Amino acid sequence: MLVYPLRAAKALRPAICIATCRALGGRLELVLPSAAVLELYHNAFLIHDDVEDLSEKRRDQSTLHEAWGMPIAVNVGDAMLALALMPLLDNMRLVGMGKALRILQAVAEMARETAEGQAIELAWIRENVFDQGDDDYERMVEKKTSYYSFMTPMNIGAIAAGVESDCVDALLKFARPLGVAFQIQDDILNLAADESRYGKEIAGDLWEGKHTLILLHAIRSSTPSERARAQAVLAKARPRGGKSLQALTGVEAAIDDLVREGELSPRAEATLRERTGRLRASVTHVHKTSEDIAFLSGLIERQGSLEYARGIAAKHGREAKVALEALSDRLGPSVHRSFLAGLAEYVSDRDR
Amino acid sequence: MLVYPLRAAKALRPAICIATCRALGGRLELVLPSAAVLELYHNAFLIHDDVEDLSEKRRDQSTLHEAWGMPIAVNVGDAMLALALMPLLDNMRLVGMGKALRILQAVAEMARETAEGQAIELAWIRENVFDQGDDDYERMVEKKTSYYSFMTPMNIGAIAAGVESDCVDALLKFARPLGVAFQIQDDILNLAADESRYGKEIAGDLWEGKHTLILLHAIRSSTPSERARAQAVLAKARPRGGKSLQALTGVEAAIDDLVREGELSPRAEATLRERTGRLRASVTHVHKTSEDIAFLSGLIERQGSLEYARGIAAKHGREAKVALEALSDRLGPSVHRSFLAGLAEYVSDRDR
Repeated sequence: MLVYPLRAAKALRPAICIATCRALGGRLELVLPSAAVLELYHNAFLIHDDVEDLSEKRRDQSTLHEAWGMPIAVNVGDAMLALALMPLLDNMRLVGMGKALRILQAVAEMARETAEGQAIELAWIRENVFDQGDDDYERMVEKKTSYYSFMTPMNIGAIAAGVESDCVDALLKFARPLGVAFQIQDDILNLAADESRYGKEIAGDLWEGKHTLILLHAIRSSTPSERARAQAVLAKARPRGGKSLQALTGVEAAIDDLVREGELSPRAEATLRERTGRLRASVTHVHKTSEDIAFLSGLIERQGSLEYARGIAAKHGREAKVALEALSDRLGPSVHRSFLAGLAEYVSDRDR
Repeated sequence: MLVYPLRAAKALRPAICIATCRALGGRLELVLPSAAVLELYHNAFLIHDDVEDLSEKRRDQSTLHEAWGMPIAVNVGDAMLALALMPLLDNMRLVGMGKALRILQAVAEMARETAEGQAIELAWIRENVFDQGDDDYERMVEKKTSYYSFMTPMNIGAIAAGVESDCVDALLKFARPLGVAFQIQDDILNLAADESRYGKEIAGDLWEGKHTLILLHAIRSSTPSERARAQAVLAKARPRGGKSLQALTGVEAAIDDLVREGELSPRAEATLRERTGRLRASVTHVHKTSEDIAFLSGLIERQGSLEYARGIAAKHGREAKVALEALSDRLGPSVHRSFLAGLAEYVSDRDR
């Protein structure tokens, strides 16, 4: 359970939760356990996401399922979700019954919305349809990312600080676009980041067939024949079983050598090629290749989809800034307010 | 999310929860949402267990990950765990703050204990050590099975009925051995059930290397050389990738044919056999075979381990009966009490 939490990470969600509480005049002690719970949920989501996506790297090292096996990774995620409930129940003594209940409700809603966002994305991948518009993407991302990364952290910070619900509503107007911009930047970094700083696999989203704003734009802007090829590429799975493939290539190379050296009759060669061809089909025919990924990357480059996505992320950043202005009579000047204000740039400027 | 819940099933956990509440004089309406939550947790656990064990059948049909893919199955489990929180929060209005909180605490403890039991078992499998005693097995099973199947359902039924904590303690003394006997019978059915009634794969536990009471007894009672072979067999993974293996067998058969027909020089044959041998090793060398499983089954039969396990299950059944006697002044005669009393036989007599 400590594998992911002990790796260097931003602790963005607890930071936002604490800053919100403090900016609104609340005390650190009252929000600390709830803030820690948010980080625990985040780590549980990461573990299960990595299993679902068959990702190989997380925070610069092996994913939990790569290091410990898939069964243990699934169970560690479940254990974290179970342990996260304890501090929320202990909150009763710390912040009183009413606030503790509202925090519990916020966390339950967050868990449901996050799973629903994930469900929408997984269904899109399974159905291999890429006709979603920007609004579909934003609705999915609001659930998948914004709820647990921005909206709920601010909501809980505000509950702990004891402010009224109209202030919470104003905070959510600030949090929502931050989350959308954050996810768009996540998608951009996945394609264009400096791998040594990024800590994850570059272009993993393309291998996984993720419906990013970038890919949706590139496909929407392409010719019908490019679109058909992209769809065919994206219908294929990620390649797996690298060792078998290597050994098979060894068999094929041996046949090539024997033919070159005149050791095989035409009939023997034909038989062996036909059989190894069938074997190769069973190992590889549904898998994406590096050329497939290069084709998708080329499409994205030709359509200017990265720039397009940067523009949309910036638009959401501006929307967040306007929403923060509306909160100025609630949030006096403080280091906490400055931190929150800085998020509007951070979400789309970050390089990891 | 409805795939597993809509398949025919026993609804054992809600039945126990409701019967306990009613036998203690509590009202059905007050316990119904909590009882439903227990079934939801059970289904979430089943989905994730099936993923962890790579099981193929559940309730007579494909497991969720076989039918919908592993990513969706992991997320559906998470979504169920998230949705289960809502009725527990709504309980506040239904049963009042104090009882609702105690039920929430019981569920949180249950989720933690279940994940811990699962973690113990997965660690045993990963480390491939089979020297656990019956007491180790019972501790693991108390957490993995008894907590969420018997102890927490009775605990919640009692909380909803409003009884004091000494009555809850007495109920847990009844519930704990029921769960252990139930799991031992589960292990027995896995090896010896009528497949048409069982709804799961026969001998799946052996393929998965599960540390059942039966297998632990068989290994403990074997000769050192049998023990070593069992350990070597259990270190291997379940076979996967059947199609590639079939195609590879086709390549090898073609080489055999060509040799028989005099089409291959000795050098060509040697080269091809060496390369296909390497390929076979990469596809199969760590996988269990049917002979491996037959060896383990033979060991279990020779050591009388099924009968041994039946004896231990019966002992726990008797322990449960004694514990129920101690509750006779709390539980007046009723259909609900009869249902609970019947569990002592049911847990080890059931055939599915």
